[in-house]
Amino acid sequence: MPTLKLRIFWRRRLPRAYSTFLFAFFLLFATAWTATAQDTSDPLPSWNNGQAKQAIIDFVARVTKDGGPDFVPPADRIVTIDNDGTLWTEQPMYTEFTFTFDRVKQLAPQHPEWQTQQPFAALLHNDMKTLAASGDRGMFQLIVATHGGVTTDQFSQIVTDWLSHAEHPRFKRPYTECVYQPMIEAMAFLRANGFKTYIVSGGEQEFMRPWAERVYGIPPEQVVGTTLKTKFDTKDGSPVLDRLPQIDSIDDGPGKPENIGKFIGKRPIAAFGNSDGDQQMLEWTASGPGPRLMVLVHHTDAEREYAYDRQSSVGRLDKALDEANAKHWVVIDMKNDWKTIFPATK
Amino acid sequence: MPTLKLRIFWRRRLPRAYSTFLFAFFLLFATAWTATAQDTSDPLPSWNNGQAKQAIIDFVARVTKDGGPDFVPPADRIVTIDNDGTLWTEQPMYTEFTFTFDRVKQLAPQHPEWQTQQPFAALLHNDMKTLAASGDRGMFQLIVATHGGVTTDQFSQIVTDWLSHAEHPRFKRPYTECVYQPMIEAMAFLRANGFKTYIVSGGEQEFMRPWAERVYGIPPEQVVGTTLKTKFDTKDGSPVLDRLPQIDSIDDGPGKPENIGKFIGKRPIAAFGNSDGDQQMLEWTASGPGPRLMVLVHHTDAEREYAYDRQSSVGRLDKALDEANAKHWVVIDMKNDWKTIFPATK
Repeated sequence: MPTLKLRIFWRRRLPRAYSTFLFAFFLLFATAWTATAQDTSDPLPSWNNGQAKQAIIDFVARVTKDGGPDFVPPADRIVTIDNDGTLWTEQPMYTEFTFTFDRVKQLAPQHPEWQTQQPFAALLHNDMKTLAASGDRGMFQLIVATHGGVTTDQFSQIVTDWLSHAEHPRFKRPYTECVYQPMIEAMAFLRANGFKTYIVSGGEQEFMRPWAERVYGIPPEQVVGTTLKTKFDTKDGSPVLDRLPQIDSIDDGPGKPENIGKFIGKRPIAAFGNSDGDQQMLEWTASGPGPRLMVLVHHTDAEREYAYDRQSSVGRLDKALDEANAKHWVVIDMKNDWKTIFPATK
Repeated sequence: MPTLKLRIFWRRRLPRAYSTFLFAFFLLFATAWTATAQDTSDPLPSWNNGQAKQAIIDFVARVTKDGGPDFVPPADRIVTIDNDGTLWTEQPMYTEFTFTFDRVKQLAPQHPEWQTQQPFAALLHNDMKTLAASGDRGMFQLIVATHGGVTTDQFSQIVTDWLSHAEHPRFKRPYTECVYQPMIEAMAFLRANGFKTYIVSGGEQEFMRPWAERVYGIPPEQVVGTTLKTKFDTKDGSPVLDRLPQIDSIDDGPGKPENIGKFIGKRPIAAFGNSDGDQQMLEWTASGPGPRLMVLVHHTDAEREYAYDRQSSVGRLDKALDEANAKHWVVIDMKNDWKTIFPATK
């Protein structure tokens, strides 16, 4: 009804030339307003204004300024990003460990020997002390036993199925919604500026690939992680890739720059991490010529997420924090720099 | 002078309205003609019309037809392409072997032990019989000794320097100009249609990366090959990646689909090869759902390049040729399918 009245007003009161003029003026104004709105729109709305946010925005402005002294061609705009604790929650335990434990329990009926064989027995009998005592070696035994012995296609399906029903114990939402909204925005902002975003994570590569594109916008070929050996085989007349119960390479610490060399073949100009396992990746990134952006996520928010650093057994941030402070790398103070932590629930 | 005469004619003889009409007509005609020329322009001008060329063009048309039954979204348009014998000449000897032999000779003064140690001694004393008898194992010894022991940056420079002066013994041109013009066009055509072109080669990865982008348009992160292990290290206060004299993985035969899984994480929908070393890559490509393109380059042109297949020690094509014939994969008959072999000299 108001529309009708406006049309009548429009037709009755205004001469045609005048109305055309008004309409043109409106168009001009609308265009100018839209342009201004775009220019001042915030690419990182979940970040509070502060040094961390400004450092990212300034860095992107410098390397994308055509003809500027710090211009970097798009082909060299490589950014490598850790996953656990940098893109999604890693407390109270790495999500992949929870997956591994669930899968040991699920597979146990097919493996009666696990009832007495460590570290499987400890896990199956909830003997967490013995399990913890088995250390990294024990954990790798569990990982290869639960991640291997299937084809790549089967494993992708297993991960997808598990994530569809598993839930974070504290946040009561799927793990793929325990991702950091500010980092999702930072990656989108970098990609919108010609960057190629890579995950470089200690997590097993095929545990991340099935969902990294949907959740982070990162396709499988840009996901680098710890790998199992595979074997080309033929089953029922069809070629498959069998995942062997054997580690191929561990993508952590010095393994990160080594795998960046192998998979990408270029030195990143920006890198994001959150723990000592990312230190060498950030050092490698820092060591190239021209502008560089090294960022650490510091977990300082016990209320909305977790607060931990030097003493944590999960995602320890100690030496890398010292180096960041000494070399003026960007340290994100999660509590103060991030307006929101997780995306809105779906 | 002719321009001046035309202008005078134009001004004197034609009324203004008529000349405007003529000009508009000319514009219309020119636009229509250009559009037609673009539609019918040949994306593969160095290919003779025939089954091989048509198969590539038809495949691309099928998978890119929006709404068609065989449409493949751009993210899944992955094509993997062998290098030696598929993109550049591999006769009379793999180019990388020539590089390796040159480098053994260059490094020999720093390695007096090589004068008596096999297979180095055989090579240094031109004892080709003993060298050949050392087989693959001997060759790998030479490769790790000449490709390792330097940083990744240093090795890239060594390859670039060598290629800048080395010359193919028969064609008397740089090796990077002994590439196949028809394949350069095929890759450009695929990329123009949303494909991501990957090299997947038995050649050592870092031997190809320094020049693959310039010569083939393929960036380092899309070059997959045999790899040496590397070690993150600090030299003179700067982080480097040391290349160890140790093979990490061999990208040949079943190693090709295994590395495609590791590096790309998607099954290609098209693959090009030329030897039995590509057989498993083509089988892996063929085994997915929907349209698939498997292509073998058959070297049938002794006059313009080389003719070899089942008996050749370099790039043997025997079992893969049988499988191609049985399964109707595309076999390029180099002599008849390719109008030109190499690009015009620069």
